[in-house]
Amino acid sequence: MTRRRAGERPLEDSLIATAHALADAARTAILPHFRARGLAAENKLSEGFDPVTEADRAAEQAMRAILAERRPDDAILGEEFGETAGQSGLTWVLDPIDGTRAFISGTPTWGVLIAVGGADGPELGVIDQPYIGERFIGGFGHAEVVGPHGTHLLGTRGTDALSDATLFTTFPEVGTGAEGAAFARLSRDVKLTRYGMDCYAYALVAAGQVDLVVEAGLNAYDIQAPIALIEAAGGVVTDWDGGPAHAGGRAIAAANREIHAAALAHLKGTA
Amino acid sequence: MTRRRAGERPLEDSLIATAHALADAARTAILPHFRARGLAAENKLSEGFDPVTEADRAAEQAMRAILAERRPDDAILGEEFGETAGQSGLTWVLDPIDGTRAFISGTPTWGVLIAVGGADGPELGVIDQPYIGERFIGGFGHAEVVGPHGTHLLGTRGTDALSDATLFTTFPEVGTGAEGAAFARLSRDVKLTRYGMDCYAYALVAAGQVDLVVEAGLNAYDIQAPIALIEAAGGVVTDWDGGPAHAGGRAIAAANREIHAAALAHLKGTA
Repeated sequence: MTRRRAGERPLEDSLIATAHALADAARTAILPHFRARGLAAENKLSEGFDPVTEADRAAEQAMRAILAERRPDDAILGEEFGETAGQSGLTWVLDPIDGTRAFISGTPTWGVLIAVGGADGPELGVIDQPYIGERFIGGFGHAEVVGPHGTHLLGTRGTDALSDATLFTTFPEVGTGAEGAAFARLSRDVKLTRYGMDCYAYALVAAGQVDLVVEAGLNAYDIQAPIALIEAAGGVVTDWDGGPAHAGGRAIAAANREIHAAALAHLKGTA
Repeated sequence: MTRRRAGERPLEDSLIATAHALADAARTAILPHFRARGLAAENKLSEGFDPVTEADRAAEQAMRAILAERRPDDAILGEEFGETAGQSGLTWVLDPIDGTRAFISGTPTWGVLIAVGGADGPELGVIDQPYIGERFIGGFGHAEVVGPHGTHLLGTRGTDALSDATLFTTFPEVGTGAEGAAFARLSRDVKLTRYGMDCYAYALVAAGQVDLVVEAGLNAYDIQAPIALIEAAGGVVTDWDGGPAHAGGRAIAAANREIHAAALAHLKGTA
């Protein structure tokens, strides 16, 4: 993060440095397991070995070891190992591999999700894609991507009409029957609907490439990093009734207030 | 390609070297346009500028210039500039950006498709993903990926039952009503169906990560590179009736003969 001089805000700087250290450790833990099956004649995996579970656990353990060292007073909520209490008022929310089905299919659209914040929601979020070597990080009013083609500031775009909007979700069925029907109504009014991007779709909202991501059935650790990233890039994330989304459930991630309001009108009150 | 000693088969070596040169040139031409909108404060694009069309044309022109120099007697079929006649019996089939909707959405699942072969179909194929810096190349009995984590041999996997298979297509509707219904029947029998990967899904069949890609409404330049790549990695690609797929239309790309036969049984005879 380059917006401020180092040392100006010691807590923010500590959190940012720690988030990068966690993401680095997760990359190292996960990458040996990605595409481990099927690399012809290069792997002889024993029957019953589950690369995604192994990678998930190894990455969360590596991240927890760093937090124990650097931020021992912070709480942790992790997808694999649950809750660890803290005293600082801050909680790290970790999903070592978001997009398990993407991971087991070899697609580079899964990610490591890292967020930190208080009871009101995340203040800093990371979506890291280890295979591409691409890290989206946002918080404290600043968002950037560091990737194979350098470092760039992130900002959401200004699309204000659904008829110009690109909408993403991961599964066409979205969630329950009622959730799927509400999504289908929204989809009919947008310019382009695309599927299958997992957490990477949220990064694309922050990057100003797409306008809306709508999902349901989320856990807190699925959505907290996207919330912090997208808000720092200028976007809006709420649940389907306009309330906070950081506890999970249904989420609308939008590039700006106008497109958020237009999507909300289709989804509000879904049974 | 490392299987044979250099110079042992001069025509194959020339085609492989030319394919790499084409893919390199396409990367250079396309990357400045990818994600050109929305990089906050870094681009001021004039109204009406279409980055995907600009990139498509620039890449095909760059590839045609190389072919004019290196392989002047070969024919060319390109998505943007059509057919150029030749005298060698070989045709280069070029799709500078396969996955236009992926490209305009910022997802790293579009690709540069390059194939070369005779009237019976492609003998060498490349699927290149410039943003990731990942190139899948296969032909003459050998397939490999060169990417951010090195060079690896490619080989399809041995899944022989639909109930264990992972199936990909790009759009849930697939094609016509009848095509969509046939796909839905197949989808009900597989373990996992995923969407939205464009040409990248074919690369994942060659890489032994997924078992089936089923699409319809294809052009010759959409499918020729995947055919050569997947066949060189041990897979099978046909149309929905088991015939040749290199002219376009409907395609089944399968990891092996058994899973191909199982998918074909669901799709054969679709109106």
